[in-house]
Amino acid sequence: MTLLAITGGVGGAKLALGMAHILDADEVTFLVNTGDDFEHLGLHISPDLDTLAYTLAGISNKTVGWGRENETWNFEASLQALGGETWFRLGDKDLALHIHRTHLLRGGSSLTSVTRSISKALGIHHTILPMSDDPVRTVVTTDEGTLPFQEYFVHRQCEPRVLSLDYRGADSARLNPSLALDDVSCVIICPSNPYLSIGPMLAVEDLRDFLSRSDIPVVAISPIVKGVALKGPTAKMMGELGLETSAATIADSYKDICSGFVLDCQDTELVGVVSEFGLRTVAFQTIMRTLQDRIDLARNVLKFCNSF
Amino acid sequence: MTLLAITGGVGGAKLALGMAHILDADEVTFLVNTGDDFEHLGLHISPDLDTLAYTLAGISNKTVGWGRENETWNFEASLQALGGETWFRLGDKDLALHIHRTHLLRGGSSLTSVTRSISKALGIHHTILPMSDDPVRTVVTTDEGTLPFQEYFVHRQCEPRVLSLDYRGADSARLNPSLALDDVSCVIICPSNPYLSIGPMLAVEDLRDFLSRSDIPVVAISPIVKGVALKGPTAKMMGELGLETSAATIADSYKDICSGFVLDCQDTELVGVVSEFGLRTVAFQTIMRTLQDRIDLARNVLKFCNSF
Repeated sequence: MTLLAITGGVGGAKLALGMAHILDADEVTFLVNTGDDFEHLGLHISPDLDTLAYTLAGISNKTVGWGRENETWNFEASLQALGGETWFRLGDKDLALHIHRTHLLRGGSSLTSVTRSISKALGIHHTILPMSDDPVRTVVTTDEGTLPFQEYFVHRQCEPRVLSLDYRGADSARLNPSLALDDVSCVIICPSNPYLSIGPMLAVEDLRDFLSRSDIPVVAISPIVKGVALKGPTAKMMGELGLETSAATIADSYKDICSGFVLDCQDTELVGVVSEFGLRTVAFQTIMRTLQDRIDLARNVLKFCNSF
Repeated sequence: MTLLAITGGVGGAKLALGMAHILDADEVTFLVNTGDDFEHLGLHISPDLDTLAYTLAGISNKTVGWGRENETWNFEASLQALGGETWFRLGDKDLALHIHRTHLLRGGSSLTSVTRSISKALGIHHTILPMSDDPVRTVVTTDEGTLPFQEYFVHRQCEPRVLSLDYRGADSARLNPSLALDDVSCVIICPSNPYLSIGPMLAVEDLRDFLSRSDIPVVAISPIVKGVALKGPTAKMMGELGLETSAATIADSYKDICSGFVLDCQDTELVGVVSEFGLRTVAFQTIMRTLQDRIDLARNVLKFCNSF
């Protein structure tokens, strides 16, 4: 039996690191969003898979939350001098992963198999799985037109007003075939952006169906604390989509697939509201500044799951 | 009227730099070998075009003769850690050019147009043209089997014994359509490897025919001095192909397309032999250690051409 952790990049990866510290490799599987994957300069880039891999390998850049630590930028400076596109930042070390993956994918390997080989090379013992080997691409419709995810997120810095989101390809995407759903005893939805990171994953029918039909504990951790997103554009997007920027809104949107919900201890006044959605609700310290914070939250969430 | 300089990488690029110092942009066109172009890690690499561009831009690595000066190798180290192929060395700065070019080529640009844009970005005023926009790939048949050029040249360090050379695609390759042959008043064949650098170019019918039929001066500079190649495997290959390692052998192989031949001043005793091939023959200092050596040789060769 194994725990399935569903995660996007930065916020989710923090909790994933905590889980990796207290669970053996066969006790947890990390299923990762690929909705923000894209092709840039001919390279296949998988930002969330990379953030998780670098985080678990202990080589992530903890300051900016993406990319590698001790990175250098000589490629980028040279590309800029040649007139190439540099709005998506690619460090010299990070680039090796993108080139290696793209080369293997073009040779016919699946994203799952490439991810496995990269994890192994980086010394990661836990299993990281892309949510699907089929392409799903998040597209953001804004007041300035429809933008591919990275164009909206990185190039435009989430500045245009979001009108709606579309997860292209999700309808026909198969859930990662390496994921043995029968072995999953518990699911944790990490505190990632519900629209940009978890949304594309839930748009994959096999996963959504499994979560809604299964009677195992499915617990989500709120990425919103005191009405504010810890990182990224979650709160801004919620406002633009006409949603109240509250952890309760997140809980509401997850209520059909979740059985439990974790609020931050600063949001204890929401326990009652969230419980009314039919979710077992607790409040923990969810802001993870240190490694110990990550481990503590992972431990608390696991205990919560085991109490079901 | 313009001078056409036919060149490969290192040796040829030295003389090309000398020419660029004494001729205006409209007075010389550099036509460059693409027979050693190849795809590596999904990237289109054009070693000779790059060596010439870096040389003319003043950013070449003068110590090793390829790549860029002040290069860093963080990409390579990371790729090695991931288990990727690193036998063909790619510096962080150099990589920008390969990725940029590959991306533009995949977008439908011709190699000529990409080369023009790269030259412009690097501040090169002179025209660098790939010999053809069609792929020509040098293949080396050795006692250990048939090897793609870079596999033989870089990966195997020219160690297998050469039995024959084949310039695949040359039969159907068109000479670069941007080259205005009617405007060419003189041709200089730079001191590049006759089999690996000049051979693939002469295998393009339009160029070979132009050189053999035209009555303008066509002058080659020997890459062999005192029976020794200044750089690279020329002498070793000549031995393996059963040829005497002498500048006279080179002159003999060029006699149908050349009208003049430049020996090194250490080979003056060969002037008679080479003249008997019907070639006007002179001897200059052809070993180019300093920038002044490159300029002096360029000046001497130009004077020689003008004396026809």
